[in-house]
Amino acid sequence: MTDPLPLAQALIRCRSVTPADDGALAVLEAALAPLGFACQRVDFGTTPNLYARRGTGGPHLMFAGHTDVVPPGQGHWTTDPFGAEVRGGVLYGRGATDMKGGVAAFVAAIAAVLERRPALPGSLSLLITGDEEGPALDGTVKVLGWLKDRGEIPDCCLVGEPTSKVELGDTIKVGRRGSLNAAITVHGTQGHAAYPQRADNPVHRLVRVLHALTAEPLDQGTRFFEPTSLQVTSVDVGNPATNVIPGSATARLNIRFNELHTEASLTARIKAVLAAEAPRHDLSIECSGESFLTSPGPFVDALVRAVRAECGREPSLDTGGGTSDARFVAKHCPVAELGAVGATMHKADECTPVDELRALSRLYARVIEEVLG
Amino acid sequence: MTDPLPLAQALIRCRSVTPADDGALAVLEAALAPLGFACQRVDFGTTPNLYARRGTGGPHLMFAGHTDVVPPGQGHWTTDPFGAEVRGGVLYGRGATDMKGGVAAFVAAIAAVLERRPALPGSLSLLITGDEEGPALDGTVKVLGWLKDRGEIPDCCLVGEPTSKVELGDTIKVGRRGSLNAAITVHGTQGHAAYPQRADNPVHRLVRVLHALTAEPLDQGTRFFEPTSLQVTSVDVGNPATNVIPGSATARLNIRFNELHTEASLTARIKAVLAAEAPRHDLSIECSGESFLTSPGPFVDALVRAVRAECGREPSLDTGGGTSDARFVAKHCPVAELGAVGATMHKADECTPVDELRALSRLYARVIEEVLG
Repeated sequence: MTDPLPLAQALIRCRSVTPADDGALAVLEAALAPLGFACQRVDFGTTPNLYARRGTGGPHLMFAGHTDVVPPGQGHWTTDPFGAEVRGGVLYGRGATDMKGGVAAFVAAIAAVLERRPALPGSLSLLITGDEEGPALDGTVKVLGWLKDRGEIPDCCLVGEPTSKVELGDTIKVGRRGSLNAAITVHGTQGHAAYPQRADNPVHRLVRVLHALTAEPLDQGTRFFEPTSLQVTSVDVGNPATNVIPGSATARLNIRFNELHTEASLTARIKAVLAAEAPRHDLSIECSGESFLTSPGPFVDALVRAVRAECGREPSLDTGGGTSDARFVAKHCPVAELGAVGATMHKADECTPVDELRALSRLYARVIEEVLG
Repeated sequence: MTDPLPLAQALIRCRSVTPADDGALAVLEAALAPLGFACQRVDFGTTPNLYARRGTGGPHLMFAGHTDVVPPGQGHWTTDPFGAEVRGGVLYGRGATDMKGGVAAFVAAIAAVLERRPALPGSLSLLITGDEEGPALDGTVKVLGWLKDRGEIPDCCLVGEPTSKVELGDTIKVGRRGSLNAAITVHGTQGHAAYPQRADNPVHRLVRVLHALTAEPLDQGTRFFEPTSLQVTSVDVGNPATNVIPGSATARLNIRFNELHTEASLTARIKAVLAAEAPRHDLSIECSGESFLTSPGPFVDALVRAVRAECGREPSLDTGGGTSDARFVAKHCPVAELGAVGATMHKADECTPVDELRALSRLYARVIEEVLG
């Protein structure tokens, strides 16, 4: 039980390409029950989810992850993506790093800690969804709502995504940028290009709007975040006539923003520019996620100490990359992401060295002991 | 012969919708020959043109015009567009104002002047094309080249377009704006919107280019010209993906410019902005006509004196509106446009009061005497 390899192999052998489960959560339940976990399936719609908790007191550390995987894809595999073959000390298979390996490493870490300290204080829980790689509408976010209703929100949460870049533990993700899309259509008055005084050129208004939005950076970045980036991704008028001033002009933009901004503040900024330069307009905003940051504090400190002790290096606290389920957890409690080296995730021949999988399990065991004390 | 009405009617009854002539130039030749004109057909391609000259010495005043007309169009006529009916003292028909009426008025003016002064000094000529309303490629411009080769460029030229706005003689056109179209494609480097540091957004570069070109007016206008107008008529990227920075972006613009600018100076201005903001670009320029201005001087003064004497008003010297064949003449000698009230030109029930047609003929007679002295 203290070796993560057998469980990782058992999970990889389930063909749980989103939205399929193919028995993956049952494999996990079978591993957790002997360790004293109360397991509950918390399915929403067709999405399978598992919530497992051991203990009732505090502190309560949650491990969040997923057993669904992306498809094998078009690349050439040298082994069966669902075979979980070990070749030359390396475990191959879809999910080896993202993140069946991480789930197995955490379960094995619990077994190892309990072997040393059967009277472990506090609580441990796992929130494992079968839809992280898909729409993620009925997964982690819904289970968290269900936990909140039950008063079971944990004190802190570790998401086991493969955050390490080159060597295990080199990177802890303590936040993610937010992402917002806006579509702006500026209305003017169509007319003949020879008589501009009788028209109102919406392209000129839109150019002023976009210049105002892009001329200066929105910020210079923060301690943990890159500068906020506003990118105009398209401008379209579609006017084929060289002697006609068009009636409207459209732009679309994408903003990746740090903790200095919110959907509300960015919307207000865009609206202020539009009010000044283009009062007649249509604006639509879609925010796929607010930015979040788990500020340095006891939980991040515990993760850093665990990396130092087990990996012998200083982790960098990072906020780069796309989104993960951590954005849902961030609304409830401190959350950070720490896991395997992600170099092969989503690629053909996804793999993890068995030694590295075991090192990850030792790292997670250290995290459990640092947090539960 | 000194009444323009019969000749105007004979010309209107020719169905000379561009490119048809339907005998119009022959009608004109038949009217000019008895007045001592040497008439030559100077056809190019399928375009009929007439050059007629009386006298060999200077000064040489040319009258330029056309006998082709635009089609009757979709509007409702209360009379036959080619019937040349006089009803209630008003002559109806396609070309009554634009510009068979003007041609007839000039011929009648010559007859009237010669009646009073058979030994008129200098030379009079008419350059009449059958393709002013069409492509105008084989009309006035070609005949002028032919005249240049023969050393027959006149000293000054009156174009008989219907320039009057409300009352006869209220407006003399002494120039026209130039028109230039530019297409700009800015190249950048495509990339993921989340990693702008690895891309080079061509939309942002194009916004800076267009902002630089439109933020300030190119000039404040001149004594005879409106301010130069630069209108961005379209911007197009066509990028449907919200998370992708596109590889290129295109804008098109139209410039209507006064005598402070030329195709060369405007091209240089655009290139300078592109060099600063978007070194990687494609630029195409099409100039459909340079601006021109016949500065105040003896010829314009003569026209102004004629209007004062015959119409009792002070004409405004104007440069508005679209293009006319005067742009071709301007390359060779001073040219101005003066003619009938154009309110009904190109419309249904195009018409001119017979009294006004006769007044126009008297005005042209005064011009001849002012110029030839």
